[in-house]
Amino acid sequence: MKAPQILNDLLARVTEVGESLMTRAKARPVSLTNRCEDLLTGAGEATGLALASEILERYQRLDRDEKHAFFVDLHARFGVDFALLAASIDAWQSAPDDTTARDLHFACEPRSQELIRRLNRVPGGTAALVAMRADLLRSLRDEPVLKQLDRDFHHLFSSWFNRGFLELRAIDWSTPAAILEKIIAYEAVHQINGWDDLRRRVAARDRRLYAFFHPALTNEPLIFVEVALARDIPDAIGPVLAEGRDEMDPRDATTAVFYSISNCQPGLRGVSFGNFLIKQVVEELRRQFENLDTFVTLSPVPGLRRWARAQCSVEESALTEAQQAAVALLDPVDGSIEGAAMADAVEKLPGIAARYLVEAHGSQGGAADPVARFHLGNGARLERINPGADHSARGLETAWGVMVNYLYHLADIEKNHEAYATLGEIKHSPSVRHLLRAR
Amino acid sequence: MKAPQILNDLLARVTEVGESLMTRAKARPVSLTNRCEDLLTGAGEATGLALASEILERYQRLDRDEKHAFFVDLHARFGVDFALLAASIDAWQSAPDDTTARDLHFACEPRSQELIRRLNRVPGGTAALVAMRADLLRSLRDEPVLKQLDRDFHHLFSSWFNRGFLELRAIDWSTPAAILEKIIAYEAVHQINGWDDLRRRVAARDRRLYAFFHPALTNEPLIFVEVALARDIPDAIGPVLAEGRDEMDPRDATTAVFYSISNCQPGLRGVSFGNFLIKQVVEELRRQFENLDTFVTLSPVPGLRRWARAQCSVEESALTEAQQAAVALLDPVDGSIEGAAMADAVEKLPGIAARYLVEAHGSQGGAADPVARFHLGNGARLERINPGADHSARGLETAWGVMVNYLYHLADIEKNHEAYATLGEIKHSPSVRHLLRAR
Amino acid sequence: MKAPQILNDLLARVTEVGESLMTRAKARPVSLTNRCEDLLTGAGEATGLALASEILERYQRLDRDEKHAFFVDLHARFGVDFALLAASIDAWQSAPDDTTARDLHFACEPRSQELIRRLNRVPGGTAALVAMRADLLRSLRDEPVLKQLDRDFHHLFSSWFNRGFLELRAIDWSTPAAILEKIIAYEAVHQINGWDDLRRRVAARDRRLYAFFHPALTNEPLIFVEVALARDIPDAIGPVLAEGRDEMDPRDATTAVFYSISNCQPGLRGVSFGNFLIKQVVEELRRQFENLDTFVTLSPVPGLRRWARAQCSVEESALTEAQQAAVALLDPVDGSIEGAAMADAVEKLPGIAARYLVEAHGSQGGAADPVARFHLGNGARLERINPGADHSARGLETAWGVMVNYLYHLADIEKNHEAYATLGEIKHSPSVRHLLRAR
Amino acid sequence: MKAPQILNDLLARVTEVGESLMTRAKARPVSLTNRCEDLLTGAGEATGLALASEILERYQRLDRDEKHAFFVDLHARFGVDFALLAASIDAWQSAPDDTTARDLHFACEPRSQELIRRLNRVPGGTAALVAMRADLLRSLRDEPVLKQLDRDFHHLFSSWFNRGFLELRAIDWSTPAAILEKIIAYEAVHQINGWDDLRRRVAARDRRLYAFFHPALTNEPLIFVEVALARDIPDAIGPVLAEGRDEMDPRDATTAVFYSISNCQPGLRGVSFGNFLIKQVVEELRRQFENLDTFVTLSPVPGLRRWARAQCSVEESALTEAQQAAVALLDPVDGSIEGAAMADAVEKLPGIAARYLVEAHGSQGGAADPVARFHLGNGARLERINPGADHSARGLETAWGVMVNYLYHLADIEKNHEAYATLGEIKHSPSVRHLLRAR
Repeated sequence: MKAPQILNDLLARVTEVGESLMTRAKARPVSLTNRCEDLLTGAGEATGLALASEILERYQRLDRDEKHAFFVDLHARFGVDFALLAASIDAWQSAPDDTTARDLHFACEPRSQELIRRLNRVPGGTAALVAMRADLLRSLRDEPVLKQLDRDFHHLFSSWFNRGFLELRAIDWSTPAAILEKIIAYEAVHQINGWDDLRRRVAARDRRLYAFFHPALTNEPLIFVEVALARDIPDAIGPVLAEGRDEMDPRDATTAVFYSISNCQPGLRGVSFGNFLIKQVVEELRRQFENLDTFVTLSPVPGLRRWARAQCSVEESALTEAQQAAVALLDPVDGSIEGAAMADAVEKLPGIAARYLVEAHGSQGGAADPVARFHLGNGARLERINPGADHSARGLETAWGVMVNYLYHLADIEKNHEAYATLGEIKHSPSVRHLLRAR
Repeated sequence: MKAPQILNDLLARVTEVGESLMTRAKARPVSLTNRCEDLLTGAGEATGLALASEILERYQRLDRDEKHAFFVDLHARFGVDFALLAASIDAWQSAPDDTTARDLHFACEPRSQELIRRLNRVPGGTAALVAMRADLLRSLRDEPVLKQLDRDFHHLFSSWFNRGFLELRAIDWSTPAAILEKIIAYEAVHQINGWDDLRRRVAARDRRLYAFFHPALTNEPLIFVEVALARDIPDAIGPVLAEGRDEMDPRDATTAVFYSISNCQPGLRGVSFGNFLIKQVVEELRRQFENLDTFVTLSPVPGLRRWARAQCSVEESALTEAQQAAVALLDPVDGSIEGAAMADAVEKLPGIAARYLVEAHGSQGGAADPVARFHLGNGARLERINPGADHSARGLETAWGVMVNYLYHLADIEKNHEAYATLGEIKHSPSVRHLLRAR
Repeated sequence: MKAPQILNDLLARVTEVGESLMTRAKARPVSLTNRCEDLLTGAGEATGLALASEILERYQRLDRDEKHAFFVDLHARFGVDFALLAASIDAWQSAPDDTTARDLHFACEPRSQELIRRLNRVPGGTAALVAMRADLLRSLRDEPVLKQLDRDFHHLFSSWFNRGFLELRAIDWSTPAAILEKIIAYEAVHQINGWDDLRRRVAARDRRLYAFFHPALTNEPLIFVEVALARDIPDAIGPVLAEGRDEMDPRDATTAVFYSISNCQPGLRGVSFGNFLIKQVVEELRRQFENLDTFVTLSPVPGLRRWARAQCSVEESALTEAQQAAVALLDPVDGSIEGAAMADAVEKLPGIAARYLVEAHGSQGGAADPVARFHLGNGARLERINPGADHSARGLETAWGVMVNYLYHLADIEKNHEAYATLGEIKHSPSVRHLLRAR
Repeated sequence: MKAPQILNDLLARVTEVGESLMTRAKARPVSLTNRCEDLLTGAGEATGLALASEILERYQRLDRDEKHAFFVDLHARFGVDFALLAASIDAWQSAPDDTTARDLHFACEPRSQELIRRLNRVPGGTAALVAMRADLLRSLRDEPVLKQLDRDFHHLFSSWFNRGFLELRAIDWSTPAAILEKIIAYEAVHQINGWDDLRRRVAARDRRLYAFFHPALTNEPLIFVEVALARDIPDAIGPVLAEGRDEMDPRDATTAVFYSISNCQPGLRGVSFGNFLIKQVVEELRRQFENLDTFVTLSPVPGLRRWARAQCSVEESALTEAQQAAVALLDPVDGSIEGAAMADAVEKLPGIAARYLVEAHGSQGGAADPVARFHLGNGARLERINPGADHSARGLETAWGVMVNYLYHLADIEKNHEAYATLGEIKHSPSVRHLLRAR
């Protein structure tokens, strides 16, 4: 019996793909891991600098599939030395003490760690490795086993990007354009629309922008926060960013508003700086402006709409029927929540958001909302819920325009953090409490 | 029967000392490790920065004994988590794969590593930790178990002081005095006698001084090398350092002489930079001066005399009888190897040194002499042996004034390194070979 | 007899204007010159710094008319001391020697010079004075006597902005935005259309931009030149500025093209830097790129059309009849010189331009065209005439799109300069000579 | 009759010297002024930079006599253009107005001014010209006519070193050694004995050193002042400079003591910065330390002894007989004013000094003492007279160890300055007044 043509075609295609993969696997990636092996064993060169450069350069020329194959190969060949591990376990088991335990730790270090350290030695090595990890994070979506390899990157980056090695810099109009254009590119919350918009955010006398830098990543901000100096806690983002708004004398400001925080390096995902950044900026601002006494964010609530919709179809909804009706009305976001018909529904948003932020929990405990998790974990409290605060497409799409303020009250930060970290308690202001009670 | 008074006194003293130790143990050090525990568990504070600062400040005020007690306590309390380790071993043994192996590695990381990383977060943290390790290295002489704790420092410092994070700087007369005075203090080979001597070494147009710095250690050189630009390979240190010598136009130089390499930070012992430093300086000099074609050291032979003396009392001596006789004559170094009686003995020194440098082996393989090990390991070859090259007290004391040149011939460096690293082969010039043959 | 109403109205208006002038004259400006008098006599203050600051600040708040009145007053009150001058002339005439001559010079220094020097003492003083002179230059158009006052500014600025005090800086993408935005604003020849266009001119690897700065004018370029590195002498500006053009490796470039030179400070008019700038940039580029052997401009011919038109209506025209016919055809510039009908006329443009550039003379000798005067005076020669080189509105409007190249041939610069400066000889290439001959 | 041999020899020698002078005069100096003529007329070169460099380099190689000849030649050839001057006088006399007066001023500018401006254009030109003027100042002692040439230097330097172009820098231990060694060399009041002494003056936390710099003189301080932060007004220099003294927390200081002011550049004599320096340092210190309320000097009285001796032999002595007797006793300074015999005489020194400082007048009015003239002219008042304050050889030699404090009381500075400048009034404290009364 003859197989149908389609099966033959399929077979041919599979063969073709397989051969292509083989070719690639034999070609550059494999030889590249061979070079990595050379680098690790120190064969052929005293310092390995030329070899490390060669590997990083060849890596950069790989296409996406080749990089994927390289990671797979790397993971397979540069893991833990099993023989050494077994021997160390024997040693520990026959004499279980601190020394054999530590020996065991060092004995089972994945070989990829030392490889990464050696690749880092050359000029530009750190930047190349951060970029490599960004590739790896993409790659591991399809190949979860690569998460193991990523642990090495994450472990080393956490050590190398230790807070003690970071430098806080004020970004302003005297900053080189090469850095400023990265600020434009990296702003992830409220897009910066070109150089004029940037100028309003960094050169106005009542605006500040601070970033962390690492000495080995020249001109590359790691994370930055944008600050508005103001007289009150703002209830909408529009006036903060408005072209042509009145500037104020920063010495008169009482309130510093963190209205945008952006991580810049996908390759540093999971290495957290934000907490340190906010606290150092608070210190820096207090040193400069003695009238400042309120430190507050103006933050999005990215998970609100998705959660509220889900609450309309579960059995034991966290929302009242009236709230559910409002959600149903608001749901088909068409770019506007204006109009008489909506007014009533919009009025219910603060109550809905309060419920989401204070009572909904994430899969690993803590608040359900990622932004809430960040600020609450830093010791801030949920201060105020502002409907109609963000008219951008994304703001409407994710939270019907709701934004919230988290308050960093210095005297309470540690207490709040402690209560949140150990008891999962979510601190909130009386006004939020009031919203919750109004069931 | 009554014990003699002296025993009573002794008993009293012992009790007193014991109580004093107890007091101390209870007092600051213990509470300090308690604070370390707080830092590690994150109790009480969101970022731990204040706590880390407190610990480092309190540590600095401890006296030597208290520091020792602190280290002992730290080692006892911040080792590997045995329960976690045991569970991880179980997991690995029931499913021995890459994932369980890596889990095991991270599970048995000594807790002191994370503690050190957290202490590093504060401004000045890195410097404080480098100083702390210098204390620890002193402490572990009496308490070898602390070597285990030191492995964590060494491991982290090796990672943090990765070549990729170091910065090469030329030190010259435009360098801040705060750094220059450290160069004076840290020079370990040929002492710098005040600012005028320093000026001759950094500001003369045919002299250079290069150092590695780390961004977190402001104004603190890690290692530096002093270079003389010359027309020939020098055979004595005196003329290199002489006051009032004629300077030459550096563009006419053909030879760069590395006449002194000093490590500056006792707390970074075992974290090696020298290899990288020399190679980067070679590159830097070649870029600046196109006539340079010879890169060579003028180095001490610190182990010569001790080895030669030992060879006079072993059964199968590496030295000929004539050589042994010369050693016997030279042995009582009294500050001078001059004089007619000595002349003959001195003439035998090159042959003796050749034997020592090429044929004697260290306990862990490789050359016996530590300076030889360093340069040969870098891929240099032993080029020439110079008797009467160093009239300083130490030069006479350790090597009867003998110094040697190691040649960094760029085309051969990798080959030499390879031969030395894998086969233990010690490359040497024809002139040294000639000395060896002349048995 | 009654005067007609119109005369009455006129009288009223004159009175009104007069009073207004009186009021102003009495009000701030006069009191400001009184303060200047205090500053000059040193009354009331040891250093005069506070007083100088006060004067400059009050000046900045004046409106245009008040500034004008201030200048008039200043000129009237801070001129030469006539009594002193007369006495010094007497002294000179009774003993005409070097000493009395020099005494005379210092005695008749206008008092405004010392006033300007004292105003310069305060931080920001130089910038304020440069701005003041820009106002003065506007003012003197209506009040030619102020040219006398301007001589003092010009004299002092020429001394203060001496070449020896200027600093050449490469402007690139690492330059602070505060400076870059000034480059955008000051470009006077080929407008920079925003930051992307700027980036193409300063950050492309085959483009350079150099500027002169003065230490007392922070962040303020005085003059800058834009350079394209290329393989050939360009014959049109379009491809030089094109978005998306191919960049070349600058090390392969043989030709440096100065395609735009802009003076930035109206207040420094007549203080010439361009000559020094071009020559220093040539040196700088030669140091960096050894393959460069041709230094050439791509320059506008701003006076071409006006001159050519004038030549159509004079008796003894410098143009042939055919050329005049072409001019007549081309004259009504409507944004385009394309089209079959035009082709013939356009072909005649090089010959017309050659005649203008080489044979037409300015009112004070030298070439008639101001750009030609600048480059010929620097020692360049007229190299090539490019029709259809500039399609911008201004290029068509002033020169029917013609641009020219001036060649800076290093070996000939001095000779060319000399011939031009002393004999008025305009050096030009054989190809230009050919155009001239083709009458 | 034959002349004695010695006369012949003398004649020969004179001839020889004469010829040598002629040779020199014809050779370099003359040709150098010829080159200056070229530079001024612009002959032969577009920018004159190469020519200016050549002249400055050739000048530096001249010996002292040749330089002298060069100045004489320069003065003779680059004075005022008499013909032009005469014509301008005619023009002025036929129409004596502002325009002809100003024309006259510019017409009779000595040609040497423009020459100096052109020499300044090259890199290093300013430094070379400052050095040239130092030579000129030496030269004019023997050739007073050169004072005329010096007026040009002084005039231009006063303009170029305008306060607005100077930069105040704090000199501390982070300052490059190249600058610090100049501070050591230039200290003119209380010699700095090497680097350790310097370190005590710039790196101690209660000491400061500030200097003025000019952008064109890299690494060259123009003038500097040394400051001690203290709790009281000091009455002797010894404790201020003492090795091993206790440092204080500068935030506790109430008093800033200016204990040494040194001009660094002989070539800038007569261009005064000291006044500006002190006032800017006062501002700077007040910004840093809020507890500072007293600004005072500790100053020498260089003219005291000479004046007091003179008062012993004039008819109408300013001193009482008892004072004269004390002077007679003290006069033969032998390095010590100790001893019982002296005690009484020393007690009279404050009264004598008070008389000198308050009542003696200089040849051009003002205080007789040069240091007093400087501080009183700045608006300080004479605060206290301290006998036994300076045990250095010079202190004893010039003032029997007396030092004084001048007080800069901010609220009174202008008033004091005014009173001194216009009325010659010398402000002094009640304690000084008391000394004066005690006749």
